[in-house]
This record gives sequence, C-alpha cells and structure tokens, in this order.
Amino acid sequence: MTTLADPSAEPRATADLIARRVPGYSLEAPFYTSPELFDLDLSAVFARSWLFAALDAEIPEPGDYTTVDVGPYSVILVRDDDEVVRALHNVCRHRGSRLLNDPAGSVGNIVCGYHQWTYATDGSLLHAGQQRPEFCKSDLGLKPVHVREVSGLIFISLAEQPPADFDDVAARITPYLVPHQLRRTKVAARVDIIEEANWKLVMENNRECYHCDAGHPELICTFFPTYGYPEDEIPARLRPAHERYRQAEAELEARCTERGMPFAPIEELDNRPSGFRIQREALDAAGESYTLDGKVASTRLLGDFDHARLGRLSLHIQPNAWFHFLSDHAVTFSVVPLAPDRTLVRSTWLVHEDAVEGVDYDLDTLTHVWRKTNEQDSVFCARVQAGVSNPAYVPGPYAPSEYQVEAFCAWYVDRLKEYQGLD
Amino acid sequence: MTTLADPSAEPRATADLIARRVPGYSLEAPFYTSPELFDLDLSAVFARSWLFAALDAEIPEPGDYTTVDVGPYSVILVRDDDEVVRALHNVCRHRGSRLLNDPAGSVGNIVCGYHQWTYATDGSLLHAGQQRPEFCKSDLGLKPVHVREVSGLIFISLAEQPPADFDDVAARITPYLVPHQLRRTKVAARVDIIEEANWKLVMENNRECYHCDAGHPELICTFFPTYGYPEDEIPARLRPAHERYRQAEAELEARCTERGMPFAPIEELDNRPSGFRIQREALDAAGESYTLDGKVASTRLLGDFDHARLGRLSLHIQPNAWFHFLSDHAVTFSVVPLAPDRTLVRSTWLVHEDAVEGVDYDLDTLTHVWRKTNEQDSVFCARVQAGVSNPAYVPGPYAPSEYQVEAFCAWYVDRLKEYQGLD
Amino acid sequence: MTTLADPSAEPRATADLIARRVPGYSLEAPFYTSPELFDLDLSAVFARSWLFAALDAEIPEPGDYTTVDVGPYSVILVRDDDEVVRALHNVCRHRGSRLLNDPAGSVGNIVCGYHQWTYATDGSLLHAGQQRPEFCKSDLGLKPVHVREVSGLIFISLAEQPPADFDDVAARITPYLVPHQLRRTKVAARVDIIEEANWKLVMENNRECYHCDAGHPELICTFFPTYGYPEDEIPARLRPAHERYRQAEAELEARCTERGMPFAPIEELDNRPSGFRIQREALDAAGESYTLDGKVASTRLLGDFDHARLGRLSLHIQPNAWFHFLSDHAVTFSVVPLAPDRTLVRSTWLVHEDAVEGVDYDLDTLTHVWRKTNEQDSVFCARVQAGVSNPAYVPGPYAPSEYQVEAFCAWYVDRLKEYQGLD
Repeated sequence: MTTLADPSAEPRATADLIARRVPGYSLEAPFYTSPELFDLDLSAVFARSWLFAALDAEIPEPGDYTTVDVGPYSVILVRDDDEVVRALHNVCRHRGSRLLNDPAGSVGNIVCGYHQWTYATDGSLLHAGQQRPEFCKSDLGLKPVHVREVSGLIFISLAEQPPADFDDVAARITPYLVPHQLRRTKVAARVDIIEEANWKLVMENNRECYHCDAGHPELICTFFPTYGYPEDEIPARLRPAHERYRQAEAELEARCTERGMPFAPIEELDNRPSGFRIQREALDAAGESYTLDGKVASTRLLGDFDHARLGRLSLHIQPNAWFHFLSDHAVTFSVVPLAPDRTLVRSTWLVHEDAVEGVDYDLDTLTHVWRKTNEQDSVFCARVQAGVSNPAYVPGPYAPSEYQVEAFCAWYVDRLKEYQGLD
Repeated sequence: MTTLADPSAEPRATADLIARRVPGYSLEAPFYTSPELFDLDLSAVFARSWLFAALDAEIPEPGDYTTVDVGPYSVILVRDDDEVVRALHNVCRHRGSRLLNDPAGSVGNIVCGYHQWTYATDGSLLHAGQQRPEFCKSDLGLKPVHVREVSGLIFISLAEQPPADFDDVAARITPYLVPHQLRRTKVAARVDIIEEANWKLVMENNRECYHCDAGHPELICTFFPTYGYPEDEIPARLRPAHERYRQAEAELEARCTERGMPFAPIEELDNRPSGFRIQREALDAAGESYTLDGKVASTRLLGDFDHARLGRLSLHIQPNAWFHFLSDHAVTFSVVPLAPDRTLVRSTWLVHEDAVEGVDYDLDTLTHVWRKTNEQDSVFCARVQAGVSNPAYVPGPYAPSEYQVEAFCAWYVDRLKEYQGLD
Repeated sequence: MTTLADPSAEPRATADLIARRVPGYSLEAPFYTSPELFDLDLSAVFARSWLFAALDAEIPEPGDYTTVDVGPYSVILVRDDDEVVRALHNVCRHRGSRLLNDPAGSVGNIVCGYHQWTYATDGSLLHAGQQRPEFCKSDLGLKPVHVREVSGLIFISLAEQPPADFDDVAARITPYLVPHQLRRTKVAARVDIIEEANWKLVMENNRECYHCDAGHPELICTFFPTYGYPEDEIPARLRPAHERYRQAEAELEARCTERGMPFAPIEELDNRPSGFRIQREALDAAGESYTLDGKVASTRLLGDFDHARLGRLSLHIQPNAWFHFLSDHAVTFSVVPLAPDRTLVRSTWLVHEDAVEGVDYDLDTLTHVWRKTNEQDSVFCARVQAGVSNPAYVPGPYAPSEYQVEAFCAWYVDRLKEYQGLD
C-alpha cells in the first residue's frame, strides 16, 4: 500500500478489465476488491487529479497549517507569511521523518522533531546542524505540491503536471461560489467516518438519489428525492414531490435572477480530466437549509445574504468531493481511499465567522441531517462491498436515474486508460 | 481473499508441492500458510464439493431463511412457499449489494435495502423501479445454488456441476439417519468459535483420537479414546477402556439389530469426491449421551426412540463436517475457512422439537462436553499453526491411529489434482 | 511472513535496489516498507547471523528454559542436565505443534501437549506412543540451533553454517565483559515494546546520538550527547558537554588502567559478518550509572567492583543488539522484526544476584532512563516509518555524526549482496 503502482505491472490483466467495461453497467469486482487496482487508483487517479483538500477557513493566519493524507502521501497546507497557502510534502529531507504529526496547528518554522532540521513555511531549509562541506541546503528544501485556492476551497494536485483544465473549472464555478463568501466562514464541525467499502462505491453512492426515498428519511425532508431522475422517468410515488420541486424551482430561479446569482446548471462530469457539475436547486419544506423542517440552522446567514430561501448550491468534482452551499452554512465532503475496502469520508460544516454557537446555531441541528445520511450511506456501501466481493457478483444495469454514477465510472475508466496509454 | 484462485496461476509451484506429497506424512507448510494455497482450497475444494450448510430445523416455515458464508460466498437458504428449501447467491443483481444481512430471519419477498429491488423466495425478480425499455426482469433473478436435503441436513454445492456421487452417499446414509428424525428437532444451542489455524489442521485434528486421552478429559468420560486405533495397536494404558468398548459394542449391536437400525460401518473417506464415513459406536459410562456421566442430556428422546442407550451415530463428510447423532440429541459441526490461519468452527445442538429447556434438558449440561472439547482443540490447532509456520518444520509421520488424518490429506490432494487436471 | 524469501525470487528488482544504494545516504523506501525485502531480511540477515537471544541469568538451573521468537522461528533455550545451554527448534517432529508455549519455565523433559511426544532436554526423542515398525526415534529428535555463550550473554545462529568470525569477536569482547560477571546477576526487569517501524529504522536510530540532545532529556543527564561526533564536528551548543567528557574520560582511563580493565575501543562495524563495536566511556554528572543524577541505581555493585565510577561499557553487535554494562547494573537490548513496519524491542535490566529490590535498588530508578529513552525513540521511529512510506520520500544525506548509521547500512547491504551472491 505504500508503493504506488507501476503502470507496467500486470498491464494486460488490467487492460483487459478496462477494455471489457460495459457502459451502463456497474464495474467488475476487481475494481472494488483488488489491491493492484487500488494501487493503480492511487497512481492513476489520486496522484494525477486535482483534489479538494481543505478550506481556507481552516488556516486563516500566517503559520496556520493542516496536514492532509491521501493514500500514502501526507501534505502540509500552511499559510505562508505572505498569506498565500503553500502545499509541501510532509517528509523531512534528512532521513524521511514525517514532519508535522498533528492534523492542524500553527508554526513559525517547520522543525523536524528528530534532528531539528528546520524549514521555512515556504519549504526552504534553514538549519540542519553540522554537515559535510558538500552539503547544500538549497538542494534539500521540502518538495512542493501544486495548490490552488478557489473561493475559499483549497485544491491540491500531487501530479508533476496537474490537469490544465482546472483553470477553466475554477473560472466557471467561482461566480456561483462567490456570494457564499467562504473566506468569511469558520469550521463549526468536522466528522470523519471510515466506510468499509472501496472509495468508488462511496462516490457512486453519492452520485444518485435512487436510494434516497427509502434510505434517507432525514435528508428527504428537504432534498427532493427526484435527484437524477429524467423528467419522464419519475416514479409515480415521487410525482407529488416532483410537483413541489417544480414550483419551488421557479420561485428560486426568480429570486436568484433578481440578485444576480447565476442559476444555470453546468454538467461536465465525464468529458474532461477535472470533471465537475454545479447546480443551484430548490429545497423542500421551508426551503432554506438541510434541517428537518427546512429552516436555517444558523440565523447568521453567510456573506451578505438578505434572504434565507436560496436552496442548495451543489458542486460535484471528480474524483472525490462534493459540496452543498446554503444561505446559512456550507457542508463539504471529501473521500480518501485507505485500502481496497476502506475509505475515509470527511464532512466539514462551515458557518459565518461571526456566528456564535448556542446563540446563532445549534451544533446538533446543523449537523443532524448529513450525519444521519452519512451513517445510512455507510451501511449501504459496506453491503455493496460485501456483495461485489462475492464470486457470484456480476455487473448489473444502471437505471436512468443513475446516469451520474455511469458518468463517474466512465470518467474513472478514462483516467485509467489515459494513465496506461490506452486511449 | 475475495477473488478465487485462477487454476493457471503459479501452477508449477503448486504442482510441485502436490507431486512431492509423501503419503503417511503431514503436509508441507505452504498447504497451511500460503495465501495462494488458501485461495486454491476455496476454488478446488469448497467451490466444488457438497458442503454441509444448515439444518432443516433452522428454517421450518415458508419464508424462514438463514445465510451461510463460505469464504467470499454468501448463500441464502430459504424455505419457499412450496416448503422446498432454495439456495440463492446473496447478491443483488443491480449493483451487487448483499441482500440479507442477518444470520437468520423470515421474509415474504427478498428486498434489497439499497434500491428496493424485490425478489421472490424462488429468486425471480419481481420489482426494480423505473428502468430502460430493454430491461429484462427474467434475466436478473438471483443466481441459484445447488441444494440437497438429506434427512434434515441441508447440503449445498457452489459448483456448476456438483459431484454426482453425492446421490449415492445420500442414499446410503439415510437409513442410519432416519430413526433420529431430525426434521422433528429444534436448535437448542449454537456456538461459533474462530480457531487460529488453517481449516485443514482443524479437520485433521477432528480425524484422530490419539490426542483424546490426554487432551479431552470431558470427552473421554464417554468417548472411547481408542478411536482410530487398529485392534493390535491399542496402547497398554488404553487396554482397559478397549475391553469396556468391546463389551459395550456387542450390547449395542444387539440392541440396534433388534430395532432394525443399520449397524455396519461404512468408510469411504478417500476414494470418491464425496468422501464419507458413518458408524454407530458405543459410548462409555452410562452409554447414553455425551455428558460427564453418560446419561441423557435431554429426557425427551429424539424421534420415536424407546431406549436411551443407543451410543453415537457418527458421520464424517469431506471436506468440512462431522456429526454425532444420539438417542436424546444431535450435534453437528461445520468448518469454514476464513484465512490461511483462521477458521470458523460452528457447533449446533439439536433436541426434540417438543423438548422444553429447564424441564427436559439443561443447556449447560447439553453443550458442556463439546464446548470444552472444541476449546481444547482450538488450543491444539493454534499451536500446530504456529509450529508449521516455523521454517524449521518438516512433515512428520502419522501413527497408525491417525489413518483417517491420512485419508483426509489423500482426499484433499486428490481434489487439487483433479482441479488442476493433474490426475 | 511465514515462509522465508526465496533468494531467486524477484532477484532483479532487489539487485537493482542494492546496486543503486548510495553510501552516505539513507536507504530507499522499499528497504523499509516492502514485504519482499522484509522476508529477505529474515533470510539474509536474521537466519544467517549470530543473534543475541537471552541471558545466562535467565536460565540458571538445569531444566530452566526460555523461548525466543525470531520472525517465524521459535527457539527453545534450555539448560541441560550437564549445565550446558542447548538451543532447539520449538517444533514437534510429529505434526509440527509448537512445543513450549510459555516465554519461560522449567521442564524435566520437553513434552508436546498434543500427542505427548516426549523429548530430552538435549532434543532426543524419548517416547512417541504406538508407531509403525519402521518408525525411527533417532531420526526424529528436535532440530538443533547453534548456540554460544559469551560471558553470560547467549547468542544463537539459525544458519547451517554460522559466521566463523564470531569466535574472534567472542575472544576480543570477553576481557571487557569479564569484570561485570554477568553470570552472577539476575534479571531485575524486562520491558518489551513494539515499535511501529521497520527493524532497520530502530537500529539506525540506536546508532547515532545526533537526536539525543533534543530528544532524550533523561538520557543526556549522564550520556554525553557528543556520541558519534568527530572531534572537529562538535556543534557549538555541545562544546561544554564535550569539555566535561574529555576530562571524565581521562579520569576513567586512569581508573581502568589501575584495575587492569581494558580501555581501548574496538570498532569493526561494517568490515565483517559479525560486525561489532565495544568501548568504555565516561558518563556525565556523578558518572556512575544511567540515572538522572548519575549515581548508582543499585548499591550492590556487580562482580567484585570496588568503585562505582566506571562509566559505561557499551557493546554494539550487528544486526540487532546493543548493551550497556555499568558498575552497578547492565542493560541489554535486542530487536526482533515482526513485520515490515513492526519491531519488537526487548530491554532487560540485570543487577547483582544478591541485590535486594527495595533495599539495594529501586526498580523505577533502575529502569527510568531507558524506559523513557525507548519510548521517545519509538515515537521517532514511527514518524520515520510514516515518512519513508510516503512516495515523496527520497534518501537524504547522513551527517558526520551519523557515521555508525552508515556503517550499519553498509554492513546490511553487504549481507544482502553476500546472500544473493552479488559480491
């Protein structure tokens, strides 16, 4: 698990699996169970894409840092003295000690606890004790990692040449994000759960709401369970919800247009390296936020919002993140593969930086819906992992409402092809 | 562990191991320790043989089900509306979710908790939400597993073509089993233990009583420790026990003959795919049951028995089960490989369906001897696992009293040869 | 982990790694993380070298035994009736059961708990129940392991042909060890800790004191942190300590010379199979022992010492042991690989056999400095393991004060070359 896959290793078996993939059907079992494919995913997907890693609000001051693990990688995100966020590999250049061992904190310089090698927050080596004459500090700075900040969201890429199309993605999502002013938020809560499933099953589960109506009683208080359904495929039992949805959508569009907030959905999930999807959609019930009654969870609205009923701005980015931005809070999700059958799901709730817990918001109310939803999804994903590990499993057909699952799989298989030079 | 062995993988190393096997000696270490051999065992033995899986008495009513795991497989055993037992792979045909996640229960239909795909108890797909026009329900029923019920014992085979000789085995053991009327029993107790040893060490341990005299103080209160010893190889210290055994055997044979119960032992452990052995033998002490004093543990005898002193009817079936049927109860054992060095041993005690706990039987008395015996064997097997994992281990010679261990190994090696096309 | 590496397996990849090794730099990541290299280390290093295994004082009487695990091996060290220490593989010759399952004890004969095969303490098979006529006891004795006792230290070699140069090492270190009279000691304390790091990181950590000044506050109360620094490379902050060291050294040399105790250091760490280093050095503070104030921890001095201020006699032996012998106690350390990223570190404190706990010594005072030091090192090593597992890790340069780390790595790589026939 600690060495990344050699693209030349077992290329034939993997190439066969990739070539055999039938669009519209779930993936074959080895994609979810094989250690070799897991290593390949780390190399071909996680070490090459742009990944959502952290929030601007987590490291507001110079010297503030957070460490982010991605498979065997550990990356330091630190705000430098010039207030720019730097990303550095969390490995001492002496004998390899991990440098920062807490999930977050604040530093002047980055000092290795082992032999006190000392690095500036830009990664340059400042001190390293007594060394031989040929010792060259400038050769031994911390290795940098590509980093981008987009309206308060911090993305990293472990690639030497990150996907160039991310500039375009950043430019296009920024107008949607700006009104929520994430840089003026703070982290109200964070929950890490470890799901007993391959990371792709976690993502696939996120990309459809076919299971919401029966599976997520709290979520569907406000989340219209018709998500993903083509207009003419809505099941009869969801028709009443759909009628409410259409009415709420019309109202929401008018409200956004009035405020100059972009409303048109963009969906480019599987036709580019930095696949994404952004859409503002109405919420059910009171229509304000992800709570059981749909009312705001924080009375201190984000940014300069003058109205609470702004629905949810939902953003999906391949390979491993999704986000919901509301009038009163935002909640971000990232997925980190830990093993073929274990995945970290990190959820972070943001509120206005001036919101006061117990006064403006109640923590349990704020987090209730998505904590429950994550727990329910965790059970679903573990059962799928158990099932696809069964030799009797064969890929089954996706329903029309699962077209975004298909888009995820198609995007994923394209990444493997690209990595293996098969396209 | 989740993908079964490719018979073409590393065929030479395994073929060499198989070819090198010296009859009369324990197996070489890789048979007990190697992950490749473990996968091969699942493919060549467990996915091809008939396996004892459950008891008729566990699922008496239509809709009653139990789930049985065999390596990466999970099988649903469910009594259909026509009272016939069906065996189905426990994997949804949509995206592979495990369907039934409890060890046992009762259902009308089998409904996947993820997207509500709904199957009848015969496996046919009844509902699957909104789908594309080309969606074909009849192609997407649950995959069946071969299943046989023999006098209240349920056997499954994961093979496409199960061994044909099982018909003969079923026909020959049925007359021995019938008088115990297992269909009129109920499960009084079940104990699952996980032994830290390869499944074959667990089986080998079961197939000799060379270790009983010193190792199983409770068992040898009634189990003659001369089991497996040829007449002229009985050690001097076991001679008195053997004299009692001969006398008790003579009495038992007379009692069975009088009642028309078959008495002749059958032993075909290593000369057929469905190797087995059945024998009725006398018990020591009071001679009635597996208790410390040999008296019955349940005063409500099985079936229509009119006499408690019927010894033990013992059945061994390759690869993974053994059974003892007594006048007052039955106890069944099955072994499921979990990892090269971990094995599940499941023990189930059956009493007459009308026996009342606390009145007709005491649960601790009923289960005491075999609980203790299993715990003692678990220690023995773990020590052998530790020892054969030591590079200093070399196969050692079986004693004459271990001829059934040799028969197990010979049967096992024949299965590997057959699977690899080496015979 | 249970089968030793085939030297012919993946020889090219390993040979490339070995050939690529740059002297003066830490090893490449696979040496610390790869299961294949771990198996190779067991075969090429641990199954071929002489290893420090136990102390004479642990098994003082005939029949006393201790069991020592080295990777998948388990070895019985037992004092035979002739008072000689025997080493035997802890595997029954019947079906492979581990024989002695406690870490230490006392036996008459060695009896297998499974089928009562009975061996004398010299390993010969005495009884084995009823067997076939061709059964030959003399072929089935316990397999012997090479064993050497050197002034109270017991060494074993799992090799068929142990390194011949150990005779020379034994002869040369004996005069240094004799005055401490380890055979007249007893074990006062033993602490086993499991470090989350490759065994070589544990050894490398032990072979330099570059990290002591900041990392080991208790140790540097008496241990001069200039250990390993060439005279002209002492950092400015350590100059005062070094001045005290020079003065204490001069006094110590005079005291030893007066008593006929050898004083010249010997350092042959990387130019022979049984690499070693021995040196008597002054301690700081009171200069007597490893305590916070440098005073003796046991008032009952070892052997016939008439003076407490004898510094520390330190012995390092490749691949896995180090020792400190003081006037009042000795402390020994051995390292056993458990997995690529897990290592057992065993520390044992010895005091005079007549010393009385609570009277002559306090257990917490005796063990305090090295317990703390081990715990601190355990954190350092785990952080290095995490760091070298990061794909961003590249080998870094050793400082001059880390020349013994380089010597360890050079010795280690020579062992691999020797094993693979590359030298």
